[in-house]
Amino acid sequence: MTIELPPSLGVRGNEEIAKDIISRIWGKRGVFTCTIANTLTSTIPGVSEAGDTPELTLYTGPADAEYLVMGKVTCMKGIPINPGGIPTPATLTKAALDLSKMPFYIINGGSKIIPNIPCIEVGGKCGEKVTTGHTLTNVQQSFEYGKILGAQLAATHDFVVVSESCAGGTTTALAVLLAMGTIRENLVSSSSPKNPKQLKWDIVMEGLKNAGIEIGDLADDPLKAMECVGDPMMPVNLGIALGAAKTVPVIFGGGTQMAPIMAAVAKMDPSVLGNIMQGTTRWLLSDPNSNMVKIMENISDRIPMVYINMDYSKSPYEGLQAYEWGFIKEGVGCGGSSVAAVISSAGKIDCDMILDRVHELYKVIMQIE
Amino acid sequence: MTIELPPSLGVRGNEEIAKDIISRIWGKRGVFTCTIANTLTSTIPGVSEAGDTPELTLYTGPADAEYLVMGKVTCMKGIPINPGGIPTPATLTKAALDLSKMPFYIINGGSKIIPNIPCIEVGGKCGEKVTTGHTLTNVQQSFEYGKILGAQLAATHDFVVVSESCAGGTTTALAVLLAMGTIRENLVSSSSPKNPKQLKWDIVMEGLKNAGIEIGDLADDPLKAMECVGDPMMPVNLGIALGAAKTVPVIFGGGTQMAPIMAAVAKMDPSVLGNIMQGTTRWLLSDPNSNMVKIMENISDRIPMVYINMDYSKSPYEGLQAYEWGFIKEGVGCGGSSVAAVISSAGKIDCDMILDRVHELYKVIMQIE
Repeated sequence: MTIELPPSLGVRGNEEIAKDIISRIWGKRGVFTCTIANTLTSTIPGVSEAGDTPELTLYTGPADAEYLVMGKVTCMKGIPINPGGIPTPATLTKAALDLSKMPFYIINGGSKIIPNIPCIEVGGKCGEKVTTGHTLTNVQQSFEYGKILGAQLAATHDFVVVSESCAGGTTTALAVLLAMGTIRENLVSSSSPKNPKQLKWDIVMEGLKNAGIEIGDLADDPLKAMECVGDPMMPVNLGIALGAAKTVPVIFGGGTQMAPIMAAVAKMDPSVLGNIMQGTTRWLLSDPNSNMVKIMENISDRIPMVYINMDYSKSPYEGLQAYEWGFIKEGVGCGGSSVAAVISSAGKIDCDMILDRVHELYKVIMQIE
Repeated sequence: MTIELPPSLGVRGNEEIAKDIISRIWGKRGVFTCTIANTLTSTIPGVSEAGDTPELTLYTGPADAEYLVMGKVTCMKGIPINPGGIPTPATLTKAALDLSKMPFYIINGGSKIIPNIPCIEVGGKCGEKVTTGHTLTNVQQSFEYGKILGAQLAATHDFVVVSESCAGGTTTALAVLLAMGTIRENLVSSSSPKNPKQLKWDIVMEGLKNAGIEIGDLADDPLKAMECVGDPMMPVNLGIALGAAKTVPVIFGGGTQMAPIMAAVAKMDPSVLGNIMQGTTRWLLSDPNSNMVKIMENISDRIPMVYINMDYSKSPYEGLQAYEWGFIKEGVGCGGSSVAAVISSAGKIDCDMILDRVHELYKVIMQIE
C-alpha cells in the first residue's frame, strides 16, 4: 500500500519511487549518521562561510557533532553561529533527533579537529586543499569500513540516513562532479546567499589541472575522483550507502555536497537505485544560486529528492528567518533527519512540532529568556 | 505488571529487582555494546588461555569483534578457538544478536591490535602488566567518554548492554576488587577449568605492592584502582553504565570481569541500583572454581544476576560440550546478549533457538558439512 505524503514533506523528481520508499519505512525505525570531515580547502579565504574565519571552519564539523551528542560544544567557544546570529543547521538536526528519538552516531570521516565525544572511526584523515589535485590518502579503507558499517546498521534498523558536516564541501563536491563528468558547469550550493561561484570554479579547475584530469575523465572511477579532488566524508558515506542499500532504504541527508556520492552509487551499483533517496530542505531546492534538480537529472531519474517543508519565516527570530533569505539552507543532515523524523513517526511529527523544538534549542543557545 | 520468567532465564540474588527490571524492558528494544581492550597481563605465561600463545591473547578481542561484525576474522588466521576446537563465546553472542536483531557496536576501550572494522573510539590505550602497579594512563577520558556514550545510547534505546572482550581480564578484575576491598580472597573465574588461582594471586599482589596499596586502600576511589591495576575496558564501561542507568536499565554482560565495574557503580552512584543487573550464563554461576554470588553479596544486594539457561550437553559437538566441562563459561557478552535476546523478543527467542543458531555458526567456523 502506498501512503499519501503529509504536508510536511514534498518531492522533486521521481515521485513514484519516493512514495514507494517512504511507504516501506513509514512508522519504522531508522538510524542517523553524520560524518564529520575536513579538507584544507575551507581555509582558502572566501570559499566557506561555515566559520567566523577560514581557520575556524575546521572547527565547524566537530562542534556540530558535539552539539548533536551533548547539546553543548567543548572544542571551541559557543556553537557554530554566523555573526548575524544565524545558527548552524545542527539546531534543526537536533530538534528532529530529539523528537524522533532516532539512534544517531557521529563518524569521524577525517576531521582535522577531533571532537570531545565518542566517534566511530573509519581510518580517514583530514584532506589537503582541492587545488593540490590530490586531497585524500586513505580512500580505500574509509570506503571498505563504510561498507562494513552500512551492512551492520542495515542488519538492525529499517533504514539508514547518511549525512555530513564538512566545511568547504560544496567545492570538493563540484570538483568530483566535474571529474566524473556528472555536470559541466557550477551548479553546487553555498551556505551563503552570495555563492562565490567563480572562486570555487577557479580553485576546482586548478585542482583538476594539478591532478592531470579533464572534466569527465574519471566517469568510471568515482573513488579515484574522490582521492584526487574529494573530501573524506565521501568515501565513507559511499561505503555506508552501498553496504546498507542492498537490504534497507538509504536516505542521503544533505544538499549538493551529497550529489557526488549519489552519482558514485548510481555508477558503482545501479541495482540499489529504487532503494535510495535524498532527504533535504525546501530551502536547498529553492536556492536560485544552485541547481540540485539539474544535478540529479544528470545522475539518475531514479533517486527522488524528498524535502522537509520547514518555513522559518514564521519564526520570531531573525537568526532563523535568515534561512529564508538564502543562508545555510542545508548541512549536518538537517533535511535528512527531519524527513526521517516525519517518516519514522508515521507523520505524527510535523514541521510545526520541529519548529517549536528548534525555537526551544535556539533560545538556549542565544540565552534568550 | 510483573512477568513470570521463561525457563530460558534464571535468577540468582535479588529476584524482586530482577523481575522488576525485566518487566520494564520485556519486548522492548535494547542496544548491545562490546568493549575490546588489553593489558599486557595476558602475555604473562599461564595467566590467560584466551589464545593459543601468550602473544596471541592480544588478538582475541579484535578477532572477537571482527567476528561479531563481519562473521569472519581478518586480523589473524581463523577465529579464536582453543586447540580442542572450543570456539570463542562470541559464537553465542553472535547467535543471540543474529536472532534478536539488536543493534550492536564495538568500542575500542584500548586494544593493542586495532580490528579491521569501524569501532567507537573513547581515547583508551592498551594497558601495562598488572604487576607494574600502574596499568592505565587515560582513565578519566575513557570514563567521561563512556558517560557521554551511555547517555546517548540511553536516549534512543530502552536498555543498554555493556560487555567486554579483554584477555587476562579476570586477573585485573581480581586486582581491582582487592584494591577496593570488595573481596579479600581470589573468587574470580577463568576461561580454563584449571583456574591458575595461585599465579593470578601472586601477580596481583606484586601489582598492589608496586602501586603502594594494601587490600581495601582504594575503597572510595574506584577510578584510581582501575588506573593502578585495572584494564582499559573498565573505565569506559563504568562510564556507559553510569551515563545510561539514570534513565534506562543497564545489563552487565559478563562474569567476574564485570564485578569491579558493578562495585564501582554501587560506590559512585547508588541511586542507579535497582536499574542495573548482571546478564550472564549458567556455566559461570555454577563454576566451582570461582564464586560470582559471593562477590556480588559483597557489592550490593540490589544487583541481581540473571543467567541464560544454555545447556551445551545437548550439542553433538565436543567443542561446544566443553562449555559444560568448565571451559570458557563467559566472555564477549555472550550471557548478556542471550539474556537480552530473550527479553527483547518477549520470550519468543529461547535457548533452543539460540542453540540451533550456535550450531549453524559453529558448522561454518569448523567447516563441517
